[in-house]
Amino acid sequence: MSALGALPRRVEIVEVGPRDGLQNEAGIVQTADKVRFIEMLADSGLRRIEATSFVSPRAIPQLADAGDVIAAIRRSPGVEYSALVPNIRGMQRAIESGLRSAAVFTGATDSFTQHNINMTIEESIAAFRPITEHARRERIRMRGYVSVCFGCPYEGAVSPAVVHSVCERLLDLGVTELSLGDTIGVATPNQVEEVAGPIIELVGAEQVALHFHDTRGAALANVLAGLLLGVSVYDSSAGGLGGCPYAPGASGNVATEDLLYMLAGMGIETGVDIHKVAAASRYLLERLGRRPPSKYLQAEE
Amino acid sequence: MSALGALPRRVEIVEVGPRDGLQNEAGIVQTADKVRFIEMLADSGLRRIEATSFVSPRAIPQLADAGDVIAAIRRSPGVEYSALVPNIRGMQRAIESGLRSAAVFTGATDSFTQHNINMTIEESIAAFRPITEHARRERIRMRGYVSVCFGCPYEGAVSPAVVHSVCERLLDLGVTELSLGDTIGVATPNQVEEVAGPIIELVGAEQVALHFHDTRGAALANVLAGLLLGVSVYDSSAGGLGGCPYAPGASGNVATEDLLYMLAGMGIETGVDIHKVAAASRYLLERLGRRPPSKYLQAEE
Repeated sequence: MSALGALPRRVEIVEVGPRDGLQNEAGIVQTADKVRFIEMLADSGLRRIEATSFVSPRAIPQLADAGDVIAAIRRSPGVEYSALVPNIRGMQRAIESGLRSAAVFTGATDSFTQHNINMTIEESIAAFRPITEHARRERIRMRGYVSVCFGCPYEGAVSPAVVHSVCERLLDLGVTELSLGDTIGVATPNQVEEVAGPIIELVGAEQVALHFHDTRGAALANVLAGLLLGVSVYDSSAGGLGGCPYAPGASGNVATEDLLYMLAGMGIETGVDIHKVAAASRYLLERLGRRPPSKYLQAEE
Repeated sequence: MSALGALPRRVEIVEVGPRDGLQNEAGIVQTADKVRFIEMLADSGLRRIEATSFVSPRAIPQLADAGDVIAAIRRSPGVEYSALVPNIRGMQRAIESGLRSAAVFTGATDSFTQHNINMTIEESIAAFRPITEHARRERIRMRGYVSVCFGCPYEGAVSPAVVHSVCERLLDLGVTELSLGDTIGVATPNQVEEVAGPIIELVGAEQVALHFHDTRGAALANVLAGLLLGVSVYDSSAGGLGGCPYAPGASGNVATEDLLYMLAGMGIETGVDIHKVAAASRYLLERLGRRPPSKYLQAEE
């Protein structure tokens, strides 16, 4: 038993670059380039890819081609492709396009959900019910995102008890994985324990995923805290694609390459080839004409 | 006892921006601006500032004004100013300028020390003897830097046993603090334990400092590993000043602001005002005409 405690031997990465990354990039990427990007990511060994979001094209024009993207990707065996769905129509579109996995999204403060999806937390949970019931009938795997679990751009501090309560409600709806999001990148390691600890007690570490943004540089420290708590599913974005809508010019999602670099150094298996992820990131970043936010990519360029 | 273990309540930051930061910036900063920068850093509550290096101006033209800088700074009570000294002449100049603290520097591989200071590790230790003897007579506090403890740009992997042996030799010379450097920013948390663990057993955590570079984004995760090992002294550079000479365009020293942000979030005292450090960093970065490498600064701009 080391000072670092017992760590998971294997980590599963949920690649959110094509969705959370691209929706926060100013540039519009061609459908064919997104398809190629997703295929390259699947080829790297990533086994879970959040490919797009079936939201209103008015809300997120970057992802207006959701159905076309899903229809066009050559599916790799063993890879779970998923999409965000805001309502029953989105869920239907996701299923029609052939997806077997989808995610609903709410937050840990009413101010945030009001700004983000124009509903209170309560209203969002009520709106999820028909979605998750449909998913159950169709045997679709449902993930639930809880945004701003570690701090809110409107309310500041967030109560771990509220996060806990939102997670309970999502589990009641039949969500089988909770992704606790640090949407504005303010979390620090002790807080990971304060917020995620009770959720892990509630539902077990295997149903909890952590979604960190590297906006203040602490994302990998927070991942280490998560590993110490036994969490083995982490969301990340290839190349560090995406930004922080609340801090222009700042970093958003932790980069898949940075996460992979640290995990590989720690001897934790992921089954992912970092060089292939890097190639996918470079391909996409060239289309956006922008430098990689990923520190690993900056160092290895 | 949490999953994060017992952490130090207080951390001491050794601000290395004026030395390690500036020596890796391409731009030359005016002496008066360096002086102002150092005074602003001292005003932020930082109690240990590595202000310059008494090396050959040919080797590091950025720090050619070492004596002038030290002579000009208005000393803040309670602040320990120090400098790097490569030889006895440098030590004498440091003392003449009024410093009471200095540092020698070697590395954990012969290839690195050959490239960096044109000596083998053995030769460097031999060269330190007159310096540390002079320091003892003059009651100067001596720190010893060991570079590339976690990986070498020339040799790749570094043996923890060699790091251990170099540290033993430095302690024999009378060095009272060892700074274990991840000079090229390749360390991961488990490795912090593998390398620093035996040194802590040798000499106690209170004589060990950790010096991380954020070149691949894992610096704060490595700090967390250090905290779990009981280490309470960390080197950092205001604004993330400096780069990586082995990866142009990549990040160098972990930013003081990023470190402070995480420690404050964890309730660990430092006595330092992050906003005052940020102001000092912005002052200096404006002179260099460059964007802050610090993610905290990018987010809070």
